[in-house]
Amino acid sequence: MASTELLGQQVYRGRLHDWLQGVRTSGPNSDITKALEDEPVMEAERLRLIYQLIARPENEGGAGISQASSKWKYVVDVFPIHDQPFNKAWIQKWSKKYLLDDSDLEDIRCKFGESVAFYFAFLGCYFRFLAFPAALGLGAWVLLGQFSFVYGLGCGLWTVVFLEYWKKKEVDLAVRWGVRGVSALQLPRTQFEWEYEADDAVTGEPVKVYPYMKRLKTQLLQIPFAIACVLVLGSLVVIANSLEIFINQVYDGPGKQYLGFLPTMILVIFTPTFSAVLMSAANALTDKENYDTVDEIAAHKAALIQKQFVLNFMTSYMALIFTGFVYIPFGNILLPFLDFWRRTAQTLTFSDKPLPTQQFRIDPGRISSQMFYCTVTAQVVNFATEVIVPYVKHKAFAKAKEFKSNGILQAQDHPEEAEFLRRIRDECELEVYDVTDDYREMVMQFGYLSLFSVAWPLAACCFLVNNWVELRSDGVKIAISCKRPIPWRSDSIGPWLNAIGFLAWLGSITSAAIVFLCSGSQDQKRGAASQITAWGGLLSILLAEHFYLLTQLAVRFVMNKVESPGIQQVRKERYLMKKKLLAENLGQPASEKAPIPGVEGGEKITRQALEEEARQASIRGHGSPEEIFWQRQRSMEETILIGRKMIEQQMAAENKKQQHTPGPSPRA
Amino acid sequence: MASTELLGQQVYRGRLHDWLQGVRTSGPNSDITKALEDEPVMEAERLRLIYQLIARPENEGGAGISQASSKWKYVVDVFPIHDQPFNKAWIQKWSKKYLLDDSDLEDIRCKFGESVAFYFAFLGCYFRFLAFPAALGLGAWVLLGQFSFVYGLGCGLWTVVFLEYWKKKEVDLAVRWGVRGVSALQLPRTQFEWEYEADDAVTGEPVKVYPYMKRLKTQLLQIPFAIACVLVLGSLVVIANSLEIFINQVYDGPGKQYLGFLPTMILVIFTPTFSAVLMSAANALTDKENYDTVDEIAAHKAALIQKQFVLNFMTSYMALIFTGFVYIPFGNILLPFLDFWRRTAQTLTFSDKPLPTQQFRIDPGRISSQMFYCTVTAQVVNFATEVIVPYVKHKAFAKAKEFKSNGILQAQDHPEEAEFLRRIRDECELEVYDVTDDYREMVMQFGYLSLFSVAWPLAACCFLVNNWVELRSDGVKIAISCKRPIPWRSDSIGPWLNAIGFLAWLGSITSAAIVFLCSGSQDQKRGAASQITAWGGLLSILLAEHFYLLTQLAVRFVMNKVESPGIQQVRKERYLMKKKLLAENLGQPASEKAPIPGVEGGEKITRQALEEEARQASIRGHGSPEEIFWQRQRSMEETILIGRKMIEQQMAAENKKQQHTPGPSPRA
Repeated sequence: MASTELLGQQVYRGRLHDWLQGVRTSGPNSDITKALEDEPVMEAERLRLIYQLIARPENEGGAGISQASSKWKYVVDVFPIHDQPFNKAWIQKWSKKYLLDDSDLEDIRCKFGESVAFYFAFLGCYFRFLAFPAALGLGAWVLLGQFSFVYGLGCGLWTVVFLEYWKKKEVDLAVRWGVRGVSALQLPRTQFEWEYEADDAVTGEPVKVYPYMKRLKTQLLQIPFAIACVLVLGSLVVIANSLEIFINQVYDGPGKQYLGFLPTMILVIFTPTFSAVLMSAANALTDKENYDTVDEIAAHKAALIQKQFVLNFMTSYMALIFTGFVYIPFGNILLPFLDFWRRTAQTLTFSDKPLPTQQFRIDPGRISSQMFYCTVTAQVVNFATEVIVPYVKHKAFAKAKEFKSNGILQAQDHPEEAEFLRRIRDECELEVYDVTDDYREMVMQFGYLSLFSVAWPLAACCFLVNNWVELRSDGVKIAISCKRPIPWRSDSIGPWLNAIGFLAWLGSITSAAIVFLCSGSQDQKRGAASQITAWGGLLSILLAEHFYLLTQLAVRFVMNKVESPGIQQVRKERYLMKKKLLAENLGQPASEKAPIPGVEGGEKITRQALEEEARQASIRGHGSPEEIFWQRQRSMEETILIGRKMIEQQMAAENKKQQHTPGPSPRA
Repeated sequence: MASTELLGQQVYRGRLHDWLQGVRTSGPNSDITKALEDEPVMEAERLRLIYQLIARPENEGGAGISQASSKWKYVVDVFPIHDQPFNKAWIQKWSKKYLLDDSDLEDIRCKFGESVAFYFAFLGCYFRFLAFPAALGLGAWVLLGQFSFVYGLGCGLWTVVFLEYWKKKEVDLAVRWGVRGVSALQLPRTQFEWEYEADDAVTGEPVKVYPYMKRLKTQLLQIPFAIACVLVLGSLVVIANSLEIFINQVYDGPGKQYLGFLPTMILVIFTPTFSAVLMSAANALTDKENYDTVDEIAAHKAALIQKQFVLNFMTSYMALIFTGFVYIPFGNILLPFLDFWRRTAQTLTFSDKPLPTQQFRIDPGRISSQMFYCTVTAQVVNFATEVIVPYVKHKAFAKAKEFKSNGILQAQDHPEEAEFLRRIRDECELEVYDVTDDYREMVMQFGYLSLFSVAWPLAACCFLVNNWVELRSDGVKIAISCKRPIPWRSDSIGPWLNAIGFLAWLGSITSAAIVFLCSGSQDQKRGAASQITAWGGLLSILLAEHFYLLTQLAVRFVMNKVESPGIQQVRKERYLMKKKLLAENLGQPASEKAPIPGVEGGEKITRQALEEEARQASIRGHGSPEEIFWQRQRSMEETILIGRKMIEQQMAAENKKQQHTPGPSPRA
């Protein structure tokens, strides 16, 4: 790709394709050089096209080089090289400012493509929006305590506004970045197995088809998969939690302080194991579904993300759901089940005397302490595993490798190139950056906020701090501890938008239920009678959910009133383009006034015209009464004359009869 | 408009405007005559343009003639004349066939415009779809009786499928009729009062603006309006119904058979009175909201329809809602309130001995008999008032008028024209056809089906019969008992779509509640214990509603998989147009294969190029390691050579160390 001319051709071809598929409003200039001058090639565009040239199959005009192919066994990976001066400046710049602005996003877009830029745009927007629940949560925590109805309401409203705002923002960004509609542009997936070829209904080009019904059959396997996830991970959570409750709240014998770690250990050991098994099942299932396209946002990826979301939902929220909706409302009913653990313990200790126990009582504070664990401890651990561990691992691994073999290779490199090649070999060892992981982290965090933050309103404050660090650490991750990503395009955050919508909706239900259940049991502590009734709980859920849906409608209505600048710009461009075209073709402006009929634009009455009309009438026969009527009124003056005569006749008739209803009048 | 040339100009101007605003895919041919030949002028298009020329204000190029203006006091109305031979043929044709097909719709579209055609398309589609609930209802009635869970489920599913199907169908029709997007094209409303002028963000033309916040303030008055509707009409329904229950189920004294008519009389007298008052309030409110556009589907009309819908909802469904959700579940609790009527009656009869009463018991059959009244009696009455009464009225009125004054006028008409003018005067007396009334009737019918048909599953059968007649009687109404409507365009059934969506959603709730409440009380009759518990009712509502929402998602997903033929056609047209443009500009097909880089398309290495590059490198300084690395591999052959050398070095190194991890390889 050292050839500027070939690159220019490729860029031009890519842009033409975009235009044909409706991504771009206007087609590129027909002169290639001119087109490139009008709109210079962005680094991300160049790298994407180069990658496609390298990786695309040979029959589609690429070189077909890929690490997966057995033909290219010495190819470890195909990736762009980091632009280190930029990375350095970027990290330095971000460490000095509090918020991201549009120019920062533009930088990311230029260097890493729209797909990564969308992630940072989302994170930035989410970060700004977090200020509201953080302030509200702090206020609620100080003034109202936990399980506050006001905080739940405010937080629910916030999720709606945030979601709808982001939906608008997303479209606006896509339009401004010129990528609106790229999710419909599909890159063929090399692993796709097709059954027959058919003509595309729109473009008329042959496309490879895999029968939809066949895929649907495989897709239906998602249902048993989801059930398996719920069963496996759900029972794990139930076992660990009930054991923990038993140990902490019922058991009162020896070794209580050590046994307390047992449930945590069970979770720490089995959750990743089961998750990994299920994740590989998800991968296999998605492969089996045999999608024809692969992309950051296309069918294959979306299907995989869906399954990952189910898995993550279970691992992240199941413990809290168990506490909130099984332990707190039904704790007393489920107490006999805890007896199972007592008997197990009895059997294990081989002693005849009964285990020392204490009085069991439901503690609504449990959900708050779990939330604290999830928001603070988990985020810190996450940060460490995400940024620090890979970096240290890579450094150590690279050092080890250098000792083993690269020393020799390096010695044989040309001295001028040695430094450069060492850097490349270094980068090749780095992990592949997958923006999905970062999205997942943020979406799961949003879920904690939406679903359970009424139990611990300070959550948003923690997230605010965490995300300030996250924004930077993700930057560092891309710049230092990962390979430079291939700058794919995308026009939205893809399936995560649905995930956020789902969590926001579910949040309206869980928050209402938690407020109802736990604020009631706080009263109970103070001695009031138990307020927990099934119909009350259902009613509060019903009301909260409908309030949520209504608010959503209202917010959408208001948001739709405001046209986003990006969309407006596109509409304007389209309008101006058409107007220009029109002016070129017609040579007159379109807004010229229409003449008033019969006055300026009317026909001249000539002898010839009259004769022609009489001839026409005789050809068609004697003419209908309509024709005769209209033939009498030939010009505006005559029409007015006859009309006036008729009005006068009618006036006379009316006066004669002293009537007051206006009669019909002839019309022009 | 006898001038063909002027008409041609107007048609061309109208089409250009459509294209500029994005309604038409392709602009009309630059030659007017050619454009008209390509796409002949439809009758509806001609009449619409003529009407606009007559009615549009003078400063916008029209003649400004309107019956509302004081300047034109002799103008009673501006309307197109009926095409009687067509009308006759149309009615005859329809009386002979069972279902409407596309050519019938095309006829209506040609003669009465898209707005009326959309109504008939909707009615036809609804009629076809009704076959399913009719069959299901008949089956359920015979096999399962009333309040059947299976019927409720089937009917709910049906509403979802129908709604989603129609949404697709609507877009498809709009695309095929070339009117997609006309709802965004706004005809200025003459009564609009603007505050200041501003430039349109898209077209740059000056537009008149009324501040949005000011309008919003008026719009907020809709809330007290809705509350007033609910209070006034609701209390009317409560009074009449409780009185009726008292007379029929508690009172057992003299005159019972006559008193039974009292509540019906109250309803018959007061419902239209209150409705009329509220409707005029709605009109006044909508005028006050001061919308800038008027059209079949634009803001002003939509706002009016919304208010009408609230009113009609109350008058149509309130009695059933009262029976279903107050009388049946809470009848026993509310019994003391009936005592109010007993005391009133006691006072009125001035007797000291207590009124003879009977034991009160809740009768779930009441809701079924009310449904029977609403579906059968009301539809027959409706048919009579809608078609027969106006026709008879018109005939009688016309006769009376003829005797009074027109005799004289007619005597003075030219004998050849007399017949024609008499017809015109006749038509001028007819009522204005408003498609909104017909939509309202159908939407309200859909509401009965969706909300309450579990109580009387035969409803759909009655509706099927009714709509067969309705389809024809609406045709007769347009052709005979109304003025020919001005053929406005529209691209959907407008605000009624939302109304149907709302009714379908509400139906999921009411059906579940009715099934829960009434099938429970039927068990009660058979001696079982009362099953009605608050939490059971809430739970069944909650489940039914979420089942509805889930089904809607699923149906939408499936429907979106199928691309409607209309949309596909538009996309195809757009694609072909672009491809044609491209071929014209470039003179080569776009699908030509890209050359493999470096093989066909690579640059020649010449002495000159090398020298130039060396010069460039020296200008920029000594060149970075990257540049030096790439300068060494100048052509594909050299790259392969160097790559091979590096691989060999690495192989050697690996063999030496007996290592098996593949090292990095240089890339092309």
